[in-house]
Amino acid sequence: MAEYKAPLRDMQFMLNDVLELEKHYQSLPGCEEATPDMVSAILEEGAKFAERVLSPLNQVGDQQGCQFNEGEVTTPDGFAEAYQAFVEGGWPSLAHDPEWGGQGLPESLGIFINEMVGSANWSWSMYPGLSHGAMNTLEAHGTQEQKQTYLTKLVSGEWTGTMCLTEAHCGTDLGMLRTKAEPADDGSYRISGTKIFISAGEHDLAGNIVHIVLARLPDAPAGTKGISLFIVPKFLPDAEGNVGERNAVSCGSIEHKMGIHGNATCVMNFDNATGYLIGPANKGLNCMFTFMNTARIGTALQGLSHTEWGFQNSLAYARDRLQMRALSGPKNPDKAADPIIVHPAVRSMLLTQKAFAEGGRALIYFAAQQVDRSKLAETPEEKQEAEDLLSLLTPIAKAFLTETGLESASHGVQVFGGHGYIAEWGMEQNLRDARIATIYEGTTQVQALDLLGRKVLMSQGELLKRFTKIIHKFCQSQADNEPMQPFVSALSRLNKEWGDLTLQIGMKAMKNREEVGAASVEYLMYSGYITLAWLWARQAEVAMRKLAENPSDADFYHAKLKTARFYFERLLPRTRTLAEVMLSGADNLMELDSEHFAF
Amino acid sequence: MAEYKAPLRDMQFMLNDVLELEKHYQSLPGCEEATPDMVSAILEEGAKFAERVLSPLNQVGDQQGCQFNEGEVTTPDGFAEAYQAFVEGGWPSLAHDPEWGGQGLPESLGIFINEMVGSANWSWSMYPGLSHGAMNTLEAHGTQEQKQTYLTKLVSGEWTGTMCLTEAHCGTDLGMLRTKAEPADDGSYRISGTKIFISAGEHDLAGNIVHIVLARLPDAPAGTKGISLFIVPKFLPDAEGNVGERNAVSCGSIEHKMGIHGNATCVMNFDNATGYLIGPANKGLNCMFTFMNTARIGTALQGLSHTEWGFQNSLAYARDRLQMRALSGPKNPDKAADPIIVHPAVRSMLLTQKAFAEGGRALIYFAAQQVDRSKLAETPEEKQEAEDLLSLLTPIAKAFLTETGLESASHGVQVFGGHGYIAEWGMEQNLRDARIATIYEGTTQVQALDLLGRKVLMSQGELLKRFTKIIHKFCQSQADNEPMQPFVSALSRLNKEWGDLTLQIGMKAMKNREEVGAASVEYLMYSGYITLAWLWARQAEVAMRKLAENPSDADFYHAKLKTARFYFERLLPRTRTLAEVMLSGADNLMELDSEHFAF
Repeated sequence: MAEYKAPLRDMQFMLNDVLELEKHYQSLPGCEEATPDMVSAILEEGAKFAERVLSPLNQVGDQQGCQFNEGEVTTPDGFAEAYQAFVEGGWPSLAHDPEWGGQGLPESLGIFINEMVGSANWSWSMYPGLSHGAMNTLEAHGTQEQKQTYLTKLVSGEWTGTMCLTEAHCGTDLGMLRTKAEPADDGSYRISGTKIFISAGEHDLAGNIVHIVLARLPDAPAGTKGISLFIVPKFLPDAEGNVGERNAVSCGSIEHKMGIHGNATCVMNFDNATGYLIGPANKGLNCMFTFMNTARIGTALQGLSHTEWGFQNSLAYARDRLQMRALSGPKNPDKAADPIIVHPAVRSMLLTQKAFAEGGRALIYFAAQQVDRSKLAETPEEKQEAEDLLSLLTPIAKAFLTETGLESASHGVQVFGGHGYIAEWGMEQNLRDARIATIYEGTTQVQALDLLGRKVLMSQGELLKRFTKIIHKFCQSQADNEPMQPFVSALSRLNKEWGDLTLQIGMKAMKNREEVGAASVEYLMYSGYITLAWLWARQAEVAMRKLAENPSDADFYHAKLKTARFYFERLLPRTRTLAEVMLSGADNLMELDSEHFAF
Repeated sequence: MAEYKAPLRDMQFMLNDVLELEKHYQSLPGCEEATPDMVSAILEEGAKFAERVLSPLNQVGDQQGCQFNEGEVTTPDGFAEAYQAFVEGGWPSLAHDPEWGGQGLPESLGIFINEMVGSANWSWSMYPGLSHGAMNTLEAHGTQEQKQTYLTKLVSGEWTGTMCLTEAHCGTDLGMLRTKAEPADDGSYRISGTKIFISAGEHDLAGNIVHIVLARLPDAPAGTKGISLFIVPKFLPDAEGNVGERNAVSCGSIEHKMGIHGNATCVMNFDNATGYLIGPANKGLNCMFTFMNTARIGTALQGLSHTEWGFQNSLAYARDRLQMRALSGPKNPDKAADPIIVHPAVRSMLLTQKAFAEGGRALIYFAAQQVDRSKLAETPEEKQEAEDLLSLLTPIAKAFLTETGLESASHGVQVFGGHGYIAEWGMEQNLRDARIATIYEGTTQVQALDLLGRKVLMSQGELLKRFTKIIHKFCQSQADNEPMQPFVSALSRLNKEWGDLTLQIGMKAMKNREEVGAASVEYLMYSGYITLAWLWARQAEVAMRKLAENPSDADFYHAKLKTARFYFERLLPRTRTLAEVMLSGADNLMELDSEHFAF
């Protein structure tokens, strides 16, 4: 019953009008061929694939889940065929280097496609998503030979990849990991240990699986400074680079979990498996962090995906379901009742989802532009500027969009009433699937510490200032734009407050480090609301400009203005609570002895 | 792995110290035998049953779910035996009239027991919970003969009951229901129609099931004024009142749903089934509303149950799980890492759960006292006063505690990190189970309209004033209590604001009815935060008094004070956002045409 339709109209609005992607691509060497027409054609093809191939498999994937049998994992019906079609369509290679078989298109384009793929079927999208992580690792740190052997197969989609980080006793705290790598005589390593929560660790979609594994060399220092990265393929490549001998890595079991049933979450056992060092010894964690930003944008996308999916389906239901009359009198007098979309409380849930979906899209696309710029901009200064902006926005995007994704998915269920709780409608699956996103790739709490502690305070507020300056400039540019004033005045006030709050917390943190942790989650969410306010104000500004041209699709732009108003009047006030709580200090959290939480 | 321990210490604190239950019971005719010792003994027995019999079946119930086979429903392993033990323990009869085999204890005592039963295993608790609804209907509206035939069997627990309201096309809007009741020659009726979402509609726990069914007589007026109530037993009683002939009511299927898998949610087909009218014709909905308050307190309990369960289990994990170091330096230097309870963001999630659990307990117990008073107080005035207070507090308790229950259950998952998403720990089940509570028995949105529209505005603010007066008196009584001032000043300011906000919304609503709906959900949540603030201030006041006596368990009272502080400094500020949003008006919700939500 549930379905997904790619929001191409809104995507085009973001790309062409708000973020001026044509100008963006023209400014980056090597991206000139990503013309609006070409981008449009690619998006339309991606939309077809997402809507026709992946969306119909979303509920099947949840109901069947993955099956485990003696080390083998069978994915749900249709998953393998869809992956084959994905490979044949050339999608895995889209944004990769032609040297390894890629199409050399900008990374951002891959992200726009991933939005549709992920919204249509998040569980399925994780298989190529994890490959992408492995490809990034190899691309950044692999030797030429390693790239030739593994990267080309991943880029073509013939093989898939994984990232093997977590162990039973350590997830966030990777410094504690125990998996060992013993050097062998031939320059390879023997990897031993057990990894858990390995997404796509085993499956039947592709001929080989390339595991990127964090492990410790025998002489490695303790903690995070003694971790190295290894390639451990499921099948060792033979002399021709094809699938050869089976390696001593196997899937011990798969987890029974709340959602994302279509993706296999594996316990992976490495039993003296052959592995190859990537990058310098003991620098594995640093190597991983070089592309953590991109990986986290990938998870931020999950928040957007569930928001968009829930919005589309609950909107359809709210227009269709007849129940009660509008408080101001019947809107549908010929029928037994009005559609529930007449009720303000239902509208509030729909508009919340809509505002988070379209605001979140703008945030992810803006971040995607920074990914492009950080890689391809003309000068090192521009690259660094994009990198800095990205490093500030990444924890915000990851945590804020997955938290609002969870909230939105829950609203989607609520709009359906009792039917939302029933499996057949798909709404409860959307909520179950969404629940993991605030946890993996660094929990909201970890992102919050990263933002406030590492990014903002450790840079003495410098990284933040660069962003607030962008917002400030936007507000200045609108000083004479009368209809924009309701947006601009609120935004500009908050932008100033953001700096003030940061200063106050920074001062407190100098006396007590716990103040950082105590303020961090509220600080992050506050930052998210301002960031989206800026992006909604930008959308409003564009909509006003477009409306002045009397376009035939004026309704679209009016809807943008009304949604922007909703965002500013009903979501942005959440900053009031967040500001008050983040200043309330650490004592109210720290003073209760851990033994006295319950009696 | 997960388990439940009845929070007897906190329950006793609420009962004996905060709500002075001894005084309460002594003031009610017929409740004198509910002495503190007796109450204590009953609670301890209830705790044993909940911890030893029901808690171990909670995860089993989720994993196995109910099985449907040709009209029969099999409950999970152990459910039937547990029900047998429940009946043998005399629990169903606890708070019912001795005339029908009850023990005549006050209703409130039943609610305290239900907290433990529901927290240990919500799905299981719904079987006796639905019986309770059927018993209340029969007690209030049945004839002597109907009570003799059905109520006695329900009170003994030999039979169970259901409430059959919802149909596929109507849940909230019961005026649309279509199930028909045709009079038969013998004074009975022939009931035909299909009901959905019937909890405990079919199962293997008891010998007979007594359905209370809403249906329409042939000449009934349209809408809610043409609904009547019928008894439709699964088996018609024979001449001796035992199980006789099978009636033409059957379970067509059970729903596959997000959670509460251990409870059968049934499609019930009535195919000219024999039914008996209860109460006056066409007054069925009024009859139901006479005890809706009690039923909704029952669902409010679900919010508390999942909050308490999630709190207990995530607290245990947070003390045990070693990961990272405290920002202010190692707290556990001998081990590889500190327990995660050292981190402020983890503490925040634990304290949120704790504050909602203990505040929610106080609210439910206070409401339970009003249930007693509304039935048993000496004078009609006192009864009415309790009834009024209850009718104001019921939508708050139902919606606020189920919303905070959902939030708390989600925090419980988050504290566990990735492990929270895995079935074996039980945290994700707790969240799935919690998700239904904001929907059934009237959604949060319906409760919000009931509170603001029907209770507050339709009484011209009178019902609200009676409650704010109670809060005001409490604040006045603490005027000279210096250490209480941080609590009292905030509470007293909000209490005044509550009235002001109500007035402003009331004025706007006179011009535009949609303003009520547009403000209602925020108004309800705001009301909930103030109500809990009052109850937390009361707990703090008692704790201070107790501490002055230098008790041996001073830690318990100190923890109360610290949790009260946490509540006032970190949860109560949510009223800032709610107040601003509820005043933002209906336009930002209503101006977008329903055709223009998406393009």
